[in-house]
Amino acid sequence: MTLEREHGNAVCPLYHRAVELVGRRWTGAILMVLLQGSCRFTDIAHAVPGLSDRLLSERLKELECEGIVMRTVHPETPVRIEYQLTEKGRDLSGVAEAVTRWATHWLAPDLDDASVTERELASVR
Amino acid sequence: MTLEREHGNAVCPLYHRAVELVGRRWTGAILMVLLQGSCRFTDIAHAVPGLSDRLLSERLKELECEGIVMRTVHPETPVRIEYQLTEKGRDLSGVAEAVTRWATHWLAPDLDDASVTERELASVR
Repeated sequence: MTLEREHGNAVCPLYHRAVELVGRRWTGAILMVLLQGSCRFTDIAHAVPGLSDRLLSERLKELECEGIVMRTVHPETPVRIEYQLTEKGRDLSGVAEAVTRWATHWLAPDLDDASVTERELASVR
Repeated sequence: MTLEREHGNAVCPLYHRAVELVGRRWTGAILMVLLQGSCRFTDIAHAVPGLSDRLLSERLKELECEGIVMRTVHPETPVRIEYQLTEKGRDLSGVAEAVTRWATHWLAPDLDDASVTERELASVR
């Protein structure tokens, strides 16, 4: 496994496919919810503000087709449908962790400003 | 840093912003090219088959606005323009590595089939 460009100068097609798949609009957020455990449709919808039911349904179907999400129908009354990650899906936790680490460090300017202020204060004391 | 959902049940908004930013169509591939070092526009275009000049230009501008990519104009004749990652951009190498690791493991069915065959052969021997 390497970051080198393969096939001459081109970006590795496997990497490209993966980054487009995981990065598809809303998919990253849906995966983060499912990484916490199995969920019903409405649980996911509530955890991702702004995501319409139509798009959530579309994304879940795509992830099912990719073998990342599994849909289980529990034969109760009323029927209960749950979504959970497959092994392939759970293995995306490394990607989610890397994105979280980067986001926490680089996209929280207020926190960063606070820590700069702390350092400045410390150097003056 | 945690994978827990913050703000009650919702997906952490910093994570969500980061995953949508990096996952935007073509952006992951462009970042991978720039992680190899500074590039001219045409170098990136050649390394990402299918990416139009218009979209490459748009994505580079977005990444510049986000402080991820830096554009340097070398005052030569003809003028040479280079794109490179800032520290914030270079720090995305952890994300690119995690995606590459997952893609190599899960999106290469031919390789997986080969290793299954190897295991099957080993169990028969």
